Amino acid sequence: MRGGAAVREETVKQAKWIWYPGEFEIYHHMLLSFRRQELGCDYPCVWHVSRPEVSVRFLKSFTVQRDGVFTAVTRGRGMVRLGAQLYPVNAPIPVQAGRCDLAVELFDFDAFPALFIDSELLVTDESWMAERYDAQPVPAACAPAFCSAADNPAVFPFAYRALSPVSVEPIANGVLYDFGQEAFGPAEVTLPAGASVQLVYGESRAEALDPAHAIIRETLTDRDEATRPARAFRYIAVCGDRAAETALTAREEYLPIEDKASFASDVPTLNEIWALCVRTFHLNTREFFLDGIKRDRWVWSGDAYQSFMIARYLYNDPSVTERTITALLGKPPYRRHINTINDYTAFLIISLWEHYAATGRRAFVRQVWENVKALYAFLVSRLDENGYAVRRQGDWIFVDWGELDKEDPVCFEQIVLWKTHLAMAALSRVMDEPDGSSAAAAALKERILKDFWDEEKGAFVDSFSSGRRFVTRQTNSFAVLYELVEGAQKRRVIENALLNPALPAITTPYFKLYELLALCEAGKIAAAQAYILSYWGGMLQAGATAVWEAFDPTQSGAAHYAMYGAPFGKSLCHAWGCGPILLLCRYVAGVRPTGVGGSAFRVAPQPGSWQSFDATVPVGAGEVRLTYQRPTVTVTATVPGGVFFDGKTETPLEAGKPMTFQLID
Amino acid sequence: MRGGAAVREETVKQAKWIWYPGEFEIYHHMLLSFRRQELGCDYPCVWHVSRPEVSVRFLKSFTVQRDGVFTAVTRGRGMVRLGAQLYPVNAPIPVQAGRCDLAVELFDFDAFPALFIDSELLVTDESWMAERYDAQPVPAACAPAFCSAADNPAVFPFAYRALSPVSVEPIANGVLYDFGQEAFGPAEVTLPAGASVQLVYGESRAEALDPAHAIIRETLTDRDEATRPARAFRYIAVCGDRAAETALTAREEYLPIEDKASFASDVPTLNEIWALCVRTFHLNTREFFLDGIKRDRWVWSGDAYQSFMIARYLYNDPSVTERTITALLGKPPYRRHINTINDYTAFLIISLWEHYAATGRRAFVRQVWENVKALYAFLVSRLDENGYAVRRQGDWIFVDWGELDKEDPVCFEQIVLWKTHLAMAALSRVMDEPDGSSAAAAALKERILKDFWDEEKGAFVDSFSSGRRFVTRQTNSFAVLYELVEGAQKRRVIENALLNPALPAITTPYFKLYELLALCEAGKIAAAQAYILSYWGGMLQAGATAVWEAFDPTQSGAAHYAMYGAPFGKSLCHAWGCGPILLLCRYVAGVRPTGVGGSAFRVAPQPGSWQSFDATVPVGAGEVRLTYQRPTVTVTATVPGGVFFDGKTETPLEAGKPMTFQLID
Repeated sequence: MRGGAAVREETVKQAKWIWYPGEFEIYHHMLLSFRRQELGCDYPCVWHVSRPEVSVRFLKSFTVQRDGVFTAVTRGRGMVRLGAQLYPVNAPIPVQAGRCDLAVELFDFDAFPALFIDSELLVTDESWMAERYDAQPVPAACAPAFCSAADNPAVFPFAYRALSPVSVEPIANGVLYDFGQEAFGPAEVTLPAGASVQLVYGESRAEALDPAHAIIRETLTDRDEATRPARAFRYIAVCGDRAAETALTAREEYLPIEDKASFASDVPTLNEIWALCVRTFHLNTREFFLDGIKRDRWVWSGDAYQSFMIARYLYNDPSVTERTITALLGKPPYRRHINTINDYTAFLIISLWEHYAATGRRAFVRQVWENVKALYAFLVSRLDENGYAVRRQGDWIFVDWGELDKEDPVCFEQIVLWKTHLAMAALSRVMDEPDGSSAAAAALKERILKDFWDEEKGAFVDSFSSGRRFVTRQTNSFAVLYELVEGAQKRRVIENALLNPALPAITTPYFKLYELLALCEAGKIAAAQAYILSYWGGMLQAGATAVWEAFDPTQSGAAHYAMYGAPFGKSLCHAWGCGPILLLCRYVAGVRPTGVGGSAFRVAPQPGSWQSFDATVPVGAGEVRLTYQRPTVTVTATVPGGVFFDGKTETPLEAGKPMTFQLID
Repeated sequence: MRGGAAVREETVKQAKWIWYPGEFEIYHHMLLSFRRQELGCDYPCVWHVSRPEVSVRFLKSFTVQRDGVFTAVTRGRGMVRLGAQLYPVNAPIPVQAGRCDLAVELFDFDAFPALFIDSELLVTDESWMAERYDAQPVPAACAPAFCSAADNPAVFPFAYRALSPVSVEPIANGVLYDFGQEAFGPAEVTLPAGASVQLVYGESRAEALDPAHAIIRETLTDRDEATRPARAFRYIAVCGDRAAETALTAREEYLPIEDKASFASDVPTLNEIWALCVRTFHLNTREFFLDGIKRDRWVWSGDAYQSFMIARYLYNDPSVTERTITALLGKPPYRRHINTINDYTAFLIISLWEHYAATGRRAFVRQVWENVKALYAFLVSRLDENGYAVRRQGDWIFVDWGELDKEDPVCFEQIVLWKTHLAMAALSRVMDEPDGSSAAAAALKERILKDFWDEEKGAFVDSFSSGRRFVTRQTNSFAVLYELVEGAQKRRVIENALLNPALPAITTPYFKLYELLALCEAGKIAAAQAYILSYWGGMLQAGATAVWEAFDPTQSGAAHYAMYGAPFGKSLCHAWGCGPILLLCRYVAGVRPTGVGGSAFRVAPQPGSWQSFDATVPVGAGEVRLTYQRPTVTVTATVPGGVFFDGKTETPLEAGKPMTFQLID
């Protein structure tokens, strides 16, 4: 009611629901982790999932100018301590003018303790402290979507829009709805009285027409909820005698988030690829960054690591990345690696450092720091006597699908461990704490170079203990990307591993992105460009409306949809295939932060084989706009701190001023 | 159905609900911790409360002789993996003859994952493994009360019996029900249509008649549940215009558990005291050992420590003690002391050692060992550079209510810390792990004797840093009880502290028990006997129907009921007042285990000032029966391992054979 606001003192702030930091993410991650359904079964998450604290205390000291009342609103239970007096929640509490010490003690078995006070005397907001009964109060957390008593932080604030089928077609045993492209959301199904139908969801038409193998299917009766759980689909088949009498509508459920990057070129396929990747990335940007929207919808650290990199360019918005890091971290004690995978623990810690470097958000590091230290301590506790990461009880040394030599110790694991030590050292400096890991990084680097470097092959071998001397693109890509090697040694790695046609090809788009990044780092832009056009362009030609989990141009028809031994096991909307966004922004447009939070940045376009493009790439609180027409580029940076690099020399960029350069080939 | 069982193979076992060990206790402790209501408010627990895991995997490999079906019953959700095949829960699953690897993956947002399978092919029982997604499967847990599909482990298996009021009396504003003695359970209230009444619970008549100050009261309408939450009361007042038309009945909710000890003497008051203590102890023996049934019903480690000692004699049944230890431990990470109190962390670890010593239940130690080590590591991480326990952020150095010198370091805390080091060393040996704390114990003992021993006072001072040289009964009682001192030094402590009338008296029954134990250890039985008769006898004379939280013979009337600044703040049914059970069994009957699990024991009656008694005291898997008629005692031990001590010499006891001895005065 606007009228109420007018009589308030000017200093009164916007009231917000508050909770203990991280609990919102932990709760919604818990729900998400147990929403998977497959082949008619609930399919619980296969790793440990943390849950919210049952009770939290909210604290605020304030001065009241005149007598009044307020109400502590919660969907949980508990009480309000005002000085020595106790009051129930959800009922008016009288306050006398003067100094007040307020503690609101809440518990919630169903969701997580959250509090809302909106009165003329005081409001809940981030100036409150929250305490999980550990005598360590921290600033309370809130989110913009929850600022009225009617809001419910236990309901994730998705947006919805109606979807219209492009066709509704009779099939052998019912009706097939085609919504024209990949979508995610709830269907509404109204059955005639006494009827029962089967719903078969398909990312592909073939899947929707194959109830025996479709991943998501369910049998409904008229007694079931009309609104079905949000799911991924392009097609929905309604099967059964009464299918024609059954009404089905669907809505898209999505997270509203703005694009800050754009890329347009004179290569039409490339523009379609950009649009395909952007749409796919949005579909996978939800409570957290998902790998894919159909199959497990669990949060995977390795997949998220790539999404963080992409999101920095596409959204330049820390919110989803921070929710994802918080959810992946969960809560100590740590008894297994993140997602049970050793590399994924490393990527999570490295992610936090890279997030800080990109955003300068020290408050977020502070919020998760205790958990990150516990996770790092867990990781360190499992190293061997040489400081190498090796396979312990319950470990999964993943690296990548495909042929790798995984006899302990595995080189790839040591490279990401080395980077993790460095990330912890850097984060410790951010937190003004002693650096306890730089020495470990230095010692490990020396040992890696001694044990895994094969002088004859001029590259790193996966394992030295196996004696196989197996060289892979995976391991050597990371030696380049993480700058384990420099100068002549780096050039040898590129030549002998990355550009060596004799080595087995990388077959997963997951790792293909790292390989492309390493190629771009090595200046092989044209090769990356050619790959983008053939791989993603091929997927478009095969009918993709979102980026697939994998694509093999030698396949055709429904063979495209099989994976993990199931005819429709492949996800047809997978975040890890959105790498072109990153490649185009970082290497072709060439915009790259060099100072924390984008306080300094470098613009070094590498148009490669392309003749012209227009790009907007966010950096810091602004953006860089580029218009390229071979060989000239006009660059406008809206914020200071930029330098332009033409291939030979650097020129400072002036904020707000378009500047034109010739690129050196 | 009995018919079904008859066709089973003889080897088929009793099916039991199974869960991850500790989760049953964690869940019921969580519920209990948030059931407190006071002055019309929900009153959440003021320390951190752990909650169950959201998901658990249950594992079993088995061989099926012929094809069949089974159903995985759960109140949660999840799926069954049988080999590579997935099946839903709560529906029949076909099994083919042969070897089967079964994994049941369950999640439960409301209670805790629990599974029940009862088929001819297989049943759930403690032969299954359970895993909290940490790659460390452990034997699944179960409880005798849950062995049919209709049972629900989320409902604690209390028993119920009807209560009859001894009077129903009109009062000014309604009706007062008097149930004759302290009770705990749910009332059933049926209101006339449209009516509203107030219920006022009273442990005393005065409390029930004082709605403004009664601790438990509530306003009901005819729309509320007829069955009210289980609460403590002797009296219930129904107040309001329609009170006379309102029907009220009540049931007692209790834990069925058998008494194994008895004590009868020719002192009638003593027999009444024994009965009062036994009844009080039963009322406080529920999911866990409670301190009192009216006020907070939270589980307190210091109070529980005394209950463990009493229960060993009264019940000789490990179940409630193990549930209580499990609940108090909760789950790591530990960020604060148990119940926020430093001494209570120490008592919990010491309790586990004493429980093992009394029962030999290594499997229980194994079950909680990881948590105990984490708790001990937390404790050790907060010691100062001298190895002393000192006050850190969030700590509460309690010791006892009353006058103590609590300037850090506090002697009492060091004595219980020393005992904790010893307990951890002993438990490590039980677990076949390296002893990491004996050296700390030895160093600490030396330092305590150097810093806290006051040669002039011939006793320990509470603090050496304050310079006050304050000597208390509390600190010195523990120096005796825990055998920090021996021989001449122990005698000086007894003389100069325990028997020194110049020192402030102990005022809490909590600590009075330790003082009485120390006096008995010092052989001052008659003094303890006199105290029992006067203190507990005085309570009986003042009208107690259960042991009060405290008793001051100089008070009268409703003044007895005040405590903590509230007119009815005192609990009138408090476990810590049940010490006479322990004192009579351990010192007067004189039965004391000396080997793990009672494998060896000593019978050394000390009748003190009493002329005759009959006692039965459990030990190991049996009991010792004593009939004393000054100066002769006849002793029958039903199990081997006993020795009799007449005050001068020891005589082996023969199992099952009554043996008669003369006691030396």
